[in-house]
Amino acid sequence: MIDLRSDTVTTPSDAMRAAAADADVGDDVYGEDPSVNELERAAADAVGMEAALYVPSGTMGNQIAARVHTERGQEALVERESHVYKWELGGFAQHAELQVRTFDGGANGCPTPEQVRDGYVEEDLHRPGTGLLCLENTHNSKGGVAVPADEFAAAAEAAHDLGLPVHVDGARVFNAATSLGVDASDLLAPVDSVMFCLSKGLGAPVGSILAGSEAFVEDARRVRKLFGGGMRQAGMIAAPGLLALENRHRLDEDHENARRLAADLNALPDLAAAEPDSNIVLVDTSDAGMTAESFLAACEDEGVLGSEFGDYTVRFCTHLDVDGGDVADAVAAVERVL
Amino acid sequence: MIDLRSDTVTTPSDAMRAAAADADVGDDVYGEDPSVNELERAAADAVGMEAALYVPSGTMGNQIAARVHTERGQEALVERESHVYKWELGGFAQHAELQVRTFDGGANGCPTPEQVRDGYVEEDLHRPGTGLLCLENTHNSKGGVAVPADEFAAAAEAAHDLGLPVHVDGARVFNAATSLGVDASDLLAPVDSVMFCLSKGLGAPVGSILAGSEAFVEDARRVRKLFGGGMRQAGMIAAPGLLALENRHRLDEDHENARRLAADLNALPDLAAAEPDSNIVLVDTSDAGMTAESFLAACEDEGVLGSEFGDYTVRFCTHLDVDGGDVADAVAAVERVL
Amino acid sequence: MIDLRSDTVTTPSDAMRAAAADADVGDDVYGEDPSVNELERAAADAVGMEAALYVPSGTMGNQIAARVHTERGQEALVERESHVYKWELGGFAQHAELQVRTFDGGANGCPTPEQVRDGYVEEDLHRPGTGLLCLENTHNSKGGVAVPADEFAAAAEAAHDLGLPVHVDGARVFNAATSLGVDASDLLAPVDSVMFCLSKGLGAPVGSILAGSEAFVEDARRVRKLFGGGMRQAGMIAAPGLLALENRHRLDEDHENARRLAADLNALPDLAAAEPDSNIVLVDTSDAGMTAESFLAACEDEGVLGSEFGDYTVRFCTHLDVDGGDVADAVAAVERVL
Amino acid sequence: MIDLRSDTVTTPSDAMRAAAADADVGDDVYGEDPSVNELERAAADAVGMEAALYVPSGTMGNQIAARVHTERGQEALVERESHVYKWELGGFAQHAELQVRTFDGGANGCPTPEQVRDGYVEEDLHRPGTGLLCLENTHNSKGGVAVPADEFAAAAEAAHDLGLPVHVDGARVFNAATSLGVDASDLLAPVDSVMFCLSKGLGAPVGSILAGSEAFVEDARRVRKLFGGGMRQAGMIAAPGLLALENRHRLDEDHENARRLAADLNALPDLAAAEPDSNIVLVDTSDAGMTAESFLAACEDEGVLGSEFGDYTVRFCTHLDVDGGDVADAVAAVERVL
Repeated sequence: MIDLRSDTVTTPSDAMRAAAADADVGDDVYGEDPSVNELERAAADAVGMEAALYVPSGTMGNQIAARVHTERGQEALVERESHVYKWELGGFAQHAELQVRTFDGGANGCPTPEQVRDGYVEEDLHRPGTGLLCLENTHNSKGGVAVPADEFAAAAEAAHDLGLPVHVDGARVFNAATSLGVDASDLLAPVDSVMFCLSKGLGAPVGSILAGSEAFVEDARRVRKLFGGGMRQAGMIAAPGLLALENRHRLDEDHENARRLAADLNALPDLAAAEPDSNIVLVDTSDAGMTAESFLAACEDEGVLGSEFGDYTVRFCTHLDVDGGDVADAVAAVERVL
Repeated sequence: MIDLRSDTVTTPSDAMRAAAADADVGDDVYGEDPSVNELERAAADAVGMEAALYVPSGTMGNQIAARVHTERGQEALVERESHVYKWELGGFAQHAELQVRTFDGGANGCPTPEQVRDGYVEEDLHRPGTGLLCLENTHNSKGGVAVPADEFAAAAEAAHDLGLPVHVDGARVFNAATSLGVDASDLLAPVDSVMFCLSKGLGAPVGSILAGSEAFVEDARRVRKLFGGGMRQAGMIAAPGLLALENRHRLDEDHENARRLAADLNALPDLAAAEPDSNIVLVDTSDAGMTAESFLAACEDEGVLGSEFGDYTVRFCTHLDVDGGDVADAVAAVERVL
Repeated sequence: MIDLRSDTVTTPSDAMRAAAADADVGDDVYGEDPSVNELERAAADAVGMEAALYVPSGTMGNQIAARVHTERGQEALVERESHVYKWELGGFAQHAELQVRTFDGGANGCPTPEQVRDGYVEEDLHRPGTGLLCLENTHNSKGGVAVPADEFAAAAEAAHDLGLPVHVDGARVFNAATSLGVDASDLLAPVDSVMFCLSKGLGAPVGSILAGSEAFVEDARRVRKLFGGGMRQAGMIAAPGLLALENRHRLDEDHENARRLAADLNALPDLAAAEPDSNIVLVDTSDAGMTAESFLAACEDEGVLGSEFGDYTVRFCTHLDVDGGDVADAVAAVERVL
Repeated sequence: MIDLRSDTVTTPSDAMRAAAADADVGDDVYGEDPSVNELERAAADAVGMEAALYVPSGTMGNQIAARVHTERGQEALVERESHVYKWELGGFAQHAELQVRTFDGGANGCPTPEQVRDGYVEEDLHRPGTGLLCLENTHNSKGGVAVPADEFAAAAEAAHDLGLPVHVDGARVFNAATSLGVDASDLLAPVDSVMFCLSKGLGAPVGSILAGSEAFVEDARRVRKLFGGGMRQAGMIAAPGLLALENRHRLDEDHENARRLAADLNALPDLAAAEPDSNIVLVDTSDAGMTAESFLAACEDEGVLGSEFGDYTVRFCTHLDVDGGDVADAVAAVERVL
């Protein structure tokens, strides 16, 4: 079975398994796990932030960030198709009592500076003031689109001009940096905090990173405890995470596979796949007269898994456990489906 | 000074003052205030609901409704320019931990059935399920537009088909009924609860009504206590409220004054005022080369007050304390401004 | 019927009714109601605070205070029988997400400085820091006991030494001041904010006051809006409230009546009533072989109402609408019950 | 260094490391991780519950339970020294908006049936109803005391008679069962849910289990996602967790070591250590004229670590990584300190 549902399905490599087995560990709640400490240091450096915190999931990282950046009674400005809004169980309202205000980020999910200014609400007697701008890069729902560094910086600058902190849901931020050909730390220089996942394209079994200033991370560490995210000998999963971090340098392979997949699917009659920016390929099945659901069921029978992204939209995701041969096999399988 | 800022500025009539002075009262927290009980009965009847609750403000009525209708961890579907979303301090997130999802209600603020279905989120492992549809009629930000009964019913029916309760912010619902020429209880028959204000166009000094089923109002009474909305000898303000309720039959005068105001302002060079549905007149000042702020400052110098509704949009509101002569004077004043 | 259930049952005097009828009013949400403004000024002066805010109920006043004084994720230190803990629907957790920590305030409900220090929790990685000390004076559940000024000040000083703000639930703070023979502003000098009720012994139909520093009241005004406590032409009830404020000078009459009631009930066989500090008389019915419930039912048949305060404890409350003759009649009625 | 601070410091055994390296894994958010599924099945069986959920920490397990068992606006009844109240950042108020009410659980932290009934609050217009009883076994703050099965069952039965669900913070519930000589599933038969830690005395690197009915766990799985506790290839830590579960059968060794440690310390002049029920030894340093802080500093210089549990109380905790020789060495070190 070729599993293209998500890059979350990557399984740990032999090296990661060995790293887990050999990890130096301690009680991370006491700050004594050397593997976690090493991972947090390396992760902070990789995104050019002062400090970083290891968390069990990307959702927790984003939710902690919202809580730390804001005060109660504020608004958060988020994209209408963003992960924090759509897929995190309404956590901004649940955990931080934030009212969300959405903008339409168009093709890449990034607001224009004008959209930031339009979405900003000044606090008064009747209105919650805006307390946070949330960006996403790459943007999952738009098809893994990488927001160019200048657009990204312009949005952040507009927020800063209004006094707003900027958090980035960078679950796949190294895919973005790779796609754009920039260093992640340069891409992220204009923002205040970022969450990225070790467990998606980077291939770690468990965990994400929340990074920002020293003061931000100190607060975040306490909120992590409140959320129940404090783990003990977490070095067992942090050590593979450290290897995963290195995988950020090979993401162009996944992107190349995605481009090939998209091109080959596009060449089939009745399927439309946009050229991908990164490792996510969105396929329109409407011309084939199949719903996403029926298309996926047929693909599964042929040994390929994808995920439903709309009534007639299927998402295929390339990743560490998929190589060029798998892509070719997947295309052949889809051809049989059609 | 002719005060057209809002219909909230109406001051109690002599009859209302006398009613306050003569009110039969008791401790309403014990349910023993006869004037409150009478008002709640009459108010429920006026909107065709089983029961009603007297609350200190429209905001409290809307916020109680959101809390009673939903469970924690849900979404509320609201219009992007609605009062509950814009002007109530993010209360849905604060009081009920609801994530809001907005639709664009177009010219009258009412969603199409398709928009209701599109905005509906089915609860799953990652998504908060939708728990409430909120409508507004008349819609304040759209300029006091009355949503026709059939459109209104169609939106409510779409919600009910999805299992969603429907609350109406009917701060000015009698203006809507009057404008549409229907009975409020017929207009509201398709929905589950409604809040309307005694203190706006109806002219009461204080208070609003939240109405719905017996069970809904029983729960609402307890949440009112949680919000600190339980008052003691509230008959002193409920008695004038009962007279105010009668004023729902004279709202066509306010609408007539609004139409005249709009027409006369429209006739002036460089001002654009749409024909109003009810008692709210939105005036576009851009052709006059004045911002709303500067236009209003100039009006104030000439003895007329309005409120800023956008950079180049002014709102004038007719009400109980404004007659035809005042409208003529206001137009003359604006003419001097231009 | 002689109604001794609570001082909340007082009905407005003719003077108050006239004041309502003649009140100068405006839209208080705009800050334009002269009667409200006058009341807020007089109320602030009466308790020696910089500023004051008119709110629909004592519960709202206390809940706003908790929210303004604290940050999310803190604890509040409250007495185990206090009103804020027992009778406000868990509002500290609901509105401000505060964990409550209780102390046993003994006979008068006031903590010793040592209890304040013991109850204080220093914020760390695992513990919410304490953010507020709440006092109550007179203390309702203890039987209207007045906390002496020096004990009260010592508790507040202990809190301040720990950096904690102190809010006073002073629903009956003028009863306390009267009982102690001190000026309310002297009694309250050591604390940061106070809520007192106009609608209890002071006899106003509706409303309470929340007072504190200018900055505190500015924040409180916004939270009042969030809670739906912003009212329009509230002068109609503020004007009687201003007269009610004057009634603080006559509370010794209520206390004298309460002392007489307690003494006379005590003289009856099988009833025990402690000498009251203020206007609340707690009566132990156990020696009479009657539960509070059956005792109260029998009293009602004889024309006297009281309230149940425990399985064998009844509360009688004297107030503005009860005079010496009523007390004598009530005692005679109880005698018939026995 | 002999580390007796906590049983959380246990490091994974070679077998656990090997299990991690060899673990069958999948994406647990999709329910596809065989190691997690196997662990959840075995864990449910070990505590006699229908189903179980793997969570990153005990705090998360307890907090999810509180949220699933209750509705907003309720109270939770908890022990005044319990972990959920003292050490989880006020999570019951933060995550579930619960007002906590505490009882004094005396020597073992378990309420009598009468205390349960006394602490129960019936919902009415002014009072939040009680929604949950939380028990803890063994009780950490009391010194690892095991609550006997009959007392435990009696408390749970009293709660059930009132319609209250019962959650057990069983971070060390297998220590309790071992100490009592009962099977954990028998001990827990009277309750509705239990959280226990794999990462304390059982020696797993990361994680805890929340167990209860199928319906409870289904809801808990969704709340885990809300809290950010959903992990991906969690089999890497679940596999060691499965071995850790077996360690529940060897806890009597830790208890024997604790008894020896307590007896030997008690035999030293000026130290008092109560005979432990399980693996926690509380030592009173007051007669030795040393504060807990100075005593611990001196111990550290001699190669022994403990934790501060009060001004003059030190906690030593035995565990998997401490054997009889370590205990003898620790006693010798303390002797040098004195």
